[in-house]
Amino acid sequence: MNTLRPIRALPGRDAVEIIDQRALPHRLVMETLASPQAVYTAIRDMWVRGAPLIGATAAYGVALQMSRDPSDAALEEGTAWLASARPTAVNLAWAIERMRARLRATPVVERAAVAWNEADAIADEDIAVNRAIGEHGLALVKAIAARKPGPVRVLTHCNAGWLATVGWGTATAPIYLAHQAGIELHVWVDETRPRNQGASLTAWELGQAGVPHAVVADNAGGHLMQHGQVDIVFVGCDRVTARGDVCNKIGTYLKALAAHDNGVPFYVAMPTSTLDRSLHDGLAEIPIEERSAREVTHLAGRDADGRIVEVQVVPDGTRAANPAFDVTPARLVTGLVTEHGVVPASAAGIASLPV
Amino acid sequence: MNTLRPIRALPGRDAVEIIDQRALPHRLVMETLASPQAVYTAIRDMWVRGAPLIGATAAYGVALQMSRDPSDAALEEGTAWLASARPTAVNLAWAIERMRARLRATPVVERAAVAWNEADAIADEDIAVNRAIGEHGLALVKAIAARKPGPVRVLTHCNAGWLATVGWGTATAPIYLAHQAGIELHVWVDETRPRNQGASLTAWELGQAGVPHAVVADNAGGHLMQHGQVDIVFVGCDRVTARGDVCNKIGTYLKALAAHDNGVPFYVAMPTSTLDRSLHDGLAEIPIEERSAREVTHLAGRDADGRIVEVQVVPDGTRAANPAFDVTPARLVTGLVTEHGVVPASAAGIASLPV
Repeated sequence: MNTLRPIRALPGRDAVEIIDQRALPHRLVMETLASPQAVYTAIRDMWVRGAPLIGATAAYGVALQMSRDPSDAALEEGTAWLASARPTAVNLAWAIERMRARLRATPVVERAAVAWNEADAIADEDIAVNRAIGEHGLALVKAIAARKPGPVRVLTHCNAGWLATVGWGTATAPIYLAHQAGIELHVWVDETRPRNQGASLTAWELGQAGVPHAVVADNAGGHLMQHGQVDIVFVGCDRVTARGDVCNKIGTYLKALAAHDNGVPFYVAMPTSTLDRSLHDGLAEIPIEERSAREVTHLAGRDADGRIVEVQVVPDGTRAANPAFDVTPARLVTGLVTEHGVVPASAAGIASLPV
Repeated sequence: MNTLRPIRALPGRDAVEIIDQRALPHRLVMETLASPQAVYTAIRDMWVRGAPLIGATAAYGVALQMSRDPSDAALEEGTAWLASARPTAVNLAWAIERMRARLRATPVVERAAVAWNEADAIADEDIAVNRAIGEHGLALVKAIAARKPGPVRVLTHCNAGWLATVGWGTATAPIYLAHQAGIELHVWVDETRPRNQGASLTAWELGQAGVPHAVVADNAGGHLMQHGQVDIVFVGCDRVTARGDVCNKIGTYLKALAAHDNGVPFYVAMPTSTLDRSLHDGLAEIPIEERSAREVTHLAGRDADGRIVEVQVVPDGTRAANPAFDVTPARLVTGLVTEHGVVPASAAGIASLPV
């Protein structure tokens, strides 16, 4: 696909290069992270975001640590410290624990080389999983293209794109593969208030890749579906339960309702790492993070002079509520697109996946 | 209710005072319109907005014209010119035609006085209609308050408030009357992208009136309903068909779907002037205005220095689509709250209303 990557080990294995996502979509800023400290800051301050990408970045942070000091003490202290950069990120803890286990079993003199190889493996595996999701999703897009003229109209919500992963993204992987395959596409990009990940990140990604798209207010998707303007919905997910309930960015549920009401297929791109088999009833069991009201009351963008400015959009003193995710019941989900194939969003569908 | 009014004839009958809504919610700016030209500008440039308010403002514009020159020529030319300020606004044409018909039947020497009386009548009738809607909606709120402890949680979309009318608003009238009646309320205010009428105007109105409320992203309403946080929805409407399909601000349909899915009553406040008995299938028959992409790609707010700044939220060159309204099928509407009472959103319900 594109030549840009959100993270890349530099050839000398002494640093990694990342996209500083804080400047997007208005500027493309690359940063070189040459120390574990730099990696820690990049994770903590959200220069990188998206669970898979955070995990891979942390793995490279461990590799940078091992290049400097591969001792047992440095391994233990360095991994514990890196893991604290964003303590609630599941992939961060997972990637660091994988690195730590591998390196503890490795002689000190070999640790630096092994660490870089293991971090590369984590990154490469993410790319492979997403590509596999893309291939299975591509089959769905191809089937639509085969039965109707004109572009396949895809709607997506938030950013489950390559900026959130090491490559391809999850919900976007079928889009990029279909575009490469020469299938005519048009992507409706939900703005995704309050953090605007669609308007900024997804629109930027699709623009880089040359995929035709238009940003719409989150309010517009139902209307588009009522008027036959959406052929398929692809969204990502943050957690999926054993019966197929899907926790994803706030507003996903509303789009799933509209898709169901209008007979539009609604697919969730789900790496099986996102599956939480310990949960069943997503609505009852998944706690929903309440984020800062300021994300609703204020908004940043670029002014006429090219400066990034934050503006307040509500009257002074206005309260806001900001639930960050919602749960889409399995009954509204047409299918889960995993790296192993498309399965129904049901207990049976989930059970058919390899553990 | 509040002492502010969006329009008021000054006692000398030589000018009207309006709220310049362009400055809201960050500043309350009153303007005195002392000529038909000033009224024309205020309508064209959206210092006033909302169909009922535009109609009343235009009526006062005719009165100002008659105070200056009550001749037949001035009446014909003045009304035609005022009607062109926003040619597609139905209430504008209706109010001006009512003024013109009344004044043509009036001797020239009496026209100025009659014109001011007629404009006052148009304004007063709007207030009376909205108050009646409020009384019927209040009964619904009271019934909820009687069967559960704690505040009645109302969700509303866009601004169908007093700023859009001459007083009370339509969807907000039950809220204000319930608040006056001492019923504990909490209002969820949909931000209402892309023009943010909820975050700016409705939040400001409720703040002025002291009604507890919180602004939420348009994405959040479904989640709130899933978790039992919404007792009733009140929205306004732009047009309602003979079978009860409701055209209203984009995103209304998504909230209606969520209300239906969660058993939350969904009411549309509808002055019968909004009824279009010539239409049946709202989805097929109501054309939806596509507004400027810039409303999606750019957004204005107040910066840290107190200045109003417009910022761009998408990458350069990004396309946007901006349908301004959607149609909620009658099957999703619990009832229509009219000035004559609450009727079902059905052909039978509509037929029961006086013509």
